[in-house]
Amino acid sequence: MFRIAFPESKLLKNLVDVISNFVDEVNFRVNEEGISIRAMDSSRVALLDVKIGREILEEFELDQEEVVGIDLDRFEKILKRAKAKNSIGLEKETEENVLKIIIRNGARREFELPLIEVAEEEIRIPELDYKATVEIDADYFLEIIKDIDIISDYVTFLADENKLKIFGRGELGSVNVVFRREEALSFEVSESCEATFGIEYLKDILSGAKIADTVRIFLGKDLPLKLEFVIPGCNLVFYLAPRIEESVE
Amino acid sequence: MFRIAFPESKLLKNLVDVISNFVDEVNFRVNEEGISIRAMDSSRVALLDVKIGREILEEFELDQEEVVGIDLDRFEKILKRAKAKNSIGLEKETEENVLKIIIRNGARREFELPLIEVAEEEIRIPELDYKATVEIDADYFLEIIKDIDIISDYVTFLADENKLKIFGRGELGSVNVVFRREEALSFEVSESCEATFGIEYLKDILSGAKIADTVRIFLGKDLPLKLEFVIPGCNLVFYLAPRIEESVE
Amino acid sequence: MFRIAFPESKLLKNLVDVISNFVDEVNFRVNEEGISIRAMDSSRVALLDVKIGREILEEFELDQEEVVGIDLDRFEKILKRAKAKNSIGLEKETEENVLKIIIRNGARREFELPLIEVAEEEIRIPELDYKATVEIDADYFLEIIKDIDIISDYVTFLADENKLKIFGRGELGSVNVVFRREEALSFEVSESCEATFGIEYLKDILSGAKIADTVRIFLGKDLPLKLEFVIPGCNLVFYLAPRIEESVE
Repeated sequence: MFRIAFPESKLLKNLVDVISNFVDEVNFRVNEEGISIRAMDSSRVALLDVKIGREILEEFELDQEEVVGIDLDRFEKILKRAKAKNSIGLEKETEENVLKIIIRNGARREFELPLIEVAEEEIRIPELDYKATVEIDADYFLEIIKDIDIISDYVTFLADENKLKIFGRGELGSVNVVFRREEALSFEVSESCEATFGIEYLKDILSGAKIADTVRIFLGKDLPLKLEFVIPGCNLVFYLAPRIEESVE
Repeated sequence: MFRIAFPESKLLKNLVDVISNFVDEVNFRVNEEGISIRAMDSSRVALLDVKIGREILEEFELDQEEVVGIDLDRFEKILKRAKAKNSIGLEKETEENVLKIIIRNGARREFELPLIEVAEEEIRIPELDYKATVEIDADYFLEIIKDIDIISDYVTFLADENKLKIFGRGELGSVNVVFRREEALSFEVSESCEATFGIEYLKDILSGAKIADTVRIFLGKDLPLKLEFVIPGCNLVFYLAPRIEESVE
Repeated sequence: MFRIAFPESKLLKNLVDVISNFVDEVNFRVNEEGISIRAMDSSRVALLDVKIGREILEEFELDQEEVVGIDLDRFEKILKRAKAKNSIGLEKETEENVLKIIIRNGARREFELPLIEVAEEEIRIPELDYKATVEIDADYFLEIIKDIDIISDYVTFLADENKLKIFGRGELGSVNVVFRREEALSFEVSESCEATFGIEYLKDILSGAKIADTVRIFLGKDLPLKLEFVIPGCNLVFYLAPRIEESVE
């Protein structure tokens, strides 16, 4: 049994939007720490690790850990009915196989979503030895990915001791953005590194950038890109396997 | 001959939007009391009764009652050209078969809409013995219908001495909203009753809910649903025949 | 070489939007006075003459006149990435065949647009003896053209000593707008005149009306329509050949 509530729907809506870009169904694990969700896309190129801390929930009642399997398409349809400032409650009784979703905007509107069985594959978060960590404004990150999207299917990140450069090139021209050491919010580069990633996956994460204040970009030679979106009371971490250079146009 | 003007276009735009969801052409009857319009949809399931009181019109000049037949699609195209705050004038000369529509936003923009002959079927408003009347916020009503729409094609209203419950059920789950006696703006239930209605017709009336402050819901055993939208200076009453229970999925 | 910057993107975005409605590619001529662009549509019915004065540019560095040939579709895609309040820089090195476009919204986002060769046809601006010049609010002009568009494919301008009348007629009815001498911002009519123009071309110029304060309308018997959009620091002049009356429905 649990009874939890988000003071505003916006955070949950954006997180579910991000997750639904990678998987169709997922398990929400509710325990003493809050809610955690892990998802890997079917091509195993992208991995999401989400934790919502109970401290940002308005209500939190739980008698034992619960794992609820959710059809994200149906869940999103219901969440869309809430305005950004409406509160959202999630409730489950121990014996019932249904999630109650309560939208409050004066009236109390109660939805019942049948739960589903979602195969539990253990998703291990890799421990990687990154050579560069640069933190920038999440808004800038969002705009840059959208900029490059009009020009190229790939985004290249290049870090050296002086700067982080994010760029894309295509037939229509090129886009370049440079963050110099002193412009970044934090900047640690122990070794120069460069890696290229498919832009489709990066676009799928942008709903996360919208609710984040900043994003920490982790790079290493031949390593997956790691993005840590800094959201109060919430961890949203994204891993993306690099593209093999030859395939870049 | 008449010369009338709405201080803002919003009311007229929303009313015409509602009416055009049920019929393609309609008669506007202009007399000493204001404007009245009655419309029944072709399947005879829904009935609209609209009265616009002259007290909310900015200008009102009339020498004799006039009945003007309007092609609603053309009329809507013209009304869309007015912003919500623009005033709208309607003028007709006795001998002419044309409605002048005047939009004022600084400039005076004058449209001429040819009138049409609309067959005058006498539509009688039923006198019904309702067992329950509950008044709620029009905004809540609007949201509830949209909520149920993602789940079901039918909406059920259930009233008893303690509450009004509005709900829908479908394969994707269910939606329930309960207004307890003390939460409703007014609440009179002399007998428990329940009835189910097609959601399509209820969605077609929602532009009326947008301009209303509250809505009075009238229910009775096997009776049509009656909705009275409370709009200053304007009566918008809607009747909807119930669905036979067996046809509900 | 030049390095120029617009303090806000809005003016450039709207001008490029107008120009791209008439031609696919165009030369931007950058000289000591600012930027000038001339374009004639392929049917030679419409002619645009645009001048952006250097006084409204935030930055202006130039060592010699440059003519840069631009694919407007690609350029627009890049400009769309700037929000209305973002500054836009345009830079070109003497030897390079690339235009750098810099969007600043905190981060400095740099796009490179390959330049193209655009055939330089000399476009001569006609010297015409207009009989009527009436200046009205650019917003009114915009709304009137959109009004007539729902009714007719043609717009007629009629000026006499007392008024300017702009109207259209179609099967669905008619639209009339009259500016009396005393309502116009300026009014000079030496001879009555009337002319009819295709509305498609007038709609294509409306992005210019959005950034203009007022528009001066020049009319003469059998002469092209001349529209002078009054935009601080910018000249946007539009010529449109009249329709032969017989072709009007």
